[in-house]
Amino acid sequence: MDIISTRSMSKDFLEDIIKSAKKYDSDKDFTSVLKGKILATLFFEPSTRTQFSFQTAMQRLGGKCVGFSSTEGTSVKKGETLMDTIRTISSYVDCIAMRHPKEGAAKLATEVSGVPIVNGGDGSHDHPTQTLLDLYTIRKGLGNFDGLNIGICGDLRYGRTGRPLSIALSNWDVKLHYISPPQLSMDKGTIRHLKDKKIAVKEVMKIEDVIKELDVLYMTRIQRERFPTEEEYLKFKGVYVVDPAMMAKAKERFILMHPLPRIDGITLEVDDDPRAKYFEQARNGVPARMAVLHKAITE
Amino acid sequence: MDIISTRSMSKDFLEDIIKSAKKYDSDKDFTSVLKGKILATLFFEPSTRTQFSFQTAMQRLGGKCVGFSSTEGTSVKKGETLMDTIRTISSYVDCIAMRHPKEGAAKLATEVSGVPIVNGGDGSHDHPTQTLLDLYTIRKGLGNFDGLNIGICGDLRYGRTGRPLSIALSNWDVKLHYISPPQLSMDKGTIRHLKDKKIAVKEVMKIEDVIKELDVLYMTRIQRERFPTEEEYLKFKGVYVVDPAMMAKAKERFILMHPLPRIDGITLEVDDDPRAKYFEQARNGVPARMAVLHKAITE
Amino acid sequence: MDIISTRSMSKDFLEDIIKSAKKYDSDKDFTSVLKGKILATLFFEPSTRTQFSFQTAMQRLGGKCVGFSSTEGTSVKKGETLMDTIRTISSYVDCIAMRHPKEGAAKLATEVSGVPIVNGGDGSHDHPTQTLLDLYTIRKGLGNFDGLNIGICGDLRYGRTGRPLSIALSNWDVKLHYISPPQLSMDKGTIRHLKDKKIAVKEVMKIEDVIKELDVLYMTRIQRERFPTEEEYLKFKGVYVVDPAMMAKAKERFILMHPLPRIDGITLEVDDDPRAKYFEQARNGVPARMAVLHKAITE
Repeated sequence: MDIISTRSMSKDFLEDIIKSAKKYDSDKDFTSVLKGKILATLFFEPSTRTQFSFQTAMQRLGGKCVGFSSTEGTSVKKGETLMDTIRTISSYVDCIAMRHPKEGAAKLATEVSGVPIVNGGDGSHDHPTQTLLDLYTIRKGLGNFDGLNIGICGDLRYGRTGRPLSIALSNWDVKLHYISPPQLSMDKGTIRHLKDKKIAVKEVMKIEDVIKELDVLYMTRIQRERFPTEEEYLKFKGVYVVDPAMMAKAKERFILMHPLPRIDGITLEVDDDPRAKYFEQARNGVPARMAVLHKAITE
Repeated sequence: MDIISTRSMSKDFLEDIIKSAKKYDSDKDFTSVLKGKILATLFFEPSTRTQFSFQTAMQRLGGKCVGFSSTEGTSVKKGETLMDTIRTISSYVDCIAMRHPKEGAAKLATEVSGVPIVNGGDGSHDHPTQTLLDLYTIRKGLGNFDGLNIGICGDLRYGRTGRPLSIALSNWDVKLHYISPPQLSMDKGTIRHLKDKKIAVKEVMKIEDVIKELDVLYMTRIQRERFPTEEEYLKFKGVYVVDPAMMAKAKERFILMHPLPRIDGITLEVDDDPRAKYFEQARNGVPARMAVLHKAITE
Repeated sequence: MDIISTRSMSKDFLEDIIKSAKKYDSDKDFTSVLKGKILATLFFEPSTRTQFSFQTAMQRLGGKCVGFSSTEGTSVKKGETLMDTIRTISSYVDCIAMRHPKEGAAKLATEVSGVPIVNGGDGSHDHPTQTLLDLYTIRKGLGNFDGLNIGICGDLRYGRTGRPLSIALSNWDVKLHYISPPQLSMDKGTIRHLKDKKIAVKEVMKIEDVIKELDVLYMTRIQRERFPTEEEYLKFKGVYVVDPAMMAKAKERFILMHPLPRIDGITLEVDDDPRAKYFEQARNGVPARMAVLHKAITE
């Protein structure tokens, strides 16, 4: 089956992946699960972290990989359409995991692919496998979703992680706290979708405004180029930093997440805090993607 | 054994590869065939399609791969000779598949390599594994070669596929129809070779001139940079396009091939025509290269 | 265990690796040794030869690989610190082999890595796996180290191989002959270290001055950019070339080594001399790195 859009994932599907990720999150030998299968990792936009965790996941399941990590030197550079590239490569392999700068690219790929497509991120639109590992990290850290106060901070408009995470979480009874500068706030369409699903959403401009209430704080990176001027950027840059002083304000039972790279959103001193879960979150990418690949290839 | 030159492949060799490709063209598990063997894919000139199908073929046979897909960051950039690169890498692995922009590079490599060399394309000279998958595609599509009228269209002078395919086909009783602008016509040496082998060759400038007679039309890409002026290029660009109107003129028992990427040589509407075999042709690259690698490494 | 620094390797450790390399230097099937293990090859500075031999070694032991061969398109380019990159990737895999342009990078990596780090070269500082394959090559070629006269020629100051090889050899009773222009001579710290270990060191400017005494001549590459002027460079360029005339002056029981690429330090005519061991030396990189990876991952 294709794994393309977070919005189309049912609660049952999400629970199923979380359960399966938990199973794969151990030292057992799973190398017979996808023995003889080949995954193509097609990264039309570079991402070492995501590509490595797909490749590691595939290999831990006994499968093998081919792939490219940028379009330099590919047929794409010769002017080949995405459709032709996908159609050709899908005839070699058993599954394709792809990242593409254009929104909707993964969906488009399913129209011609003879094998399952897994969306490894399409523009700032969706990144379902990141959402799945994020959910698994919250479940592992806090036991359940219902009743949680979850803060998502940073670039909510162009960021690739906050939107699909919100949509997935709307399957449970959570309260969302969006923390961002007004020009990077969550889009109206997503807010409406969440309200339709009876999710309480609160929008604030500073982490301090909500830190005491939160069970989860999910930080994301703010990129300089989103702001019209350097001055505007600097105004918000310092505001979205989690340091030990900020952590001191948070609950004891609390987890801090970040899809990484963190650049300057979380200071190094926070790493030793047991509530800092961003490296474990990255690590969870492997069992979560093992669950995804197994489902994509066998169902 | 080395697999370097289409001209040196006997009819028996070709039949043997076709037979072996047919065997590998199934879902059976062949992962014990080359277990423990390692292939180096050395692409001094990029080609995703060819590299992926070599890597897929090797892995479907149970082997493993190392490789580079461009010379960026290799010892070649530090000034190492091809001979030293090949001699070193051949001491690590069990076989080398290489593409190189210089004519004769693969042949040269065999002089120092301690392991079999497979030519994955050397300049515009030869591309024997492409020819092998092309032959397999024709055999699969039409049953035999004798008596066929085969058209090859596009850049026959600098293209990498038309010349070796012609030479391989000259082992059977075929009639070749070359379709190209005069400045990109097949070189005299090849024409002479074909005539020596009693192959009927007809040269025309338009697809329309021969489409009704053809059993196979093999399209190739014309590159803008081959023409002295943009004006010259545009004069021929529109002429070498296969669209549904052109397909309507072709026989019912007919196959359309293209080594891909097609860019603008075949319109998208043709894809649904059951006679359009270019994606199946690409797909056949895997079993054909499984046959090649098995022969190269074990004979 | 981490394998970072040549200076911290004991004589027992070195003997152990040499013994293990000898075992792996055969055609036997070792693919069950590291079955299910994954190595990340992180090359922050490109090196095809070293990367391929690590990947080949891992795969010959039954393990698998992920990796990058330059930082283009990695999170490093987005501004991620080395520490975060290592911490994240170490959570995916079972071992990291890394090359980095900065001295001390591999050591730094051990501070955050959850898995063993193998130093594949850090700046001009150290390159322990090269030293291990160099030792194995000398042992294989000449039987023992005690009593040998070993010449090391070329860029001893900025070169990555001469210094660690000297330090490792100082565990035995060898005599070192350094051959270099004064501005590229071995640093004082290393000379002092060797004298403390009672190693006789002789410094000369020409190969001719010592060739007759040597059991081993280890050539290294001199890079143009180390000299202030082209004139200075050319003065030494011709001086450090081994050709058949030079080989004629060497002992019968003698081996010529070079870490490669040789560029113009050894002429092609020397390749046929049975005392020329540089290609065998490159080849020894695979069994030596099999020994290293096995030790790193299992001890």
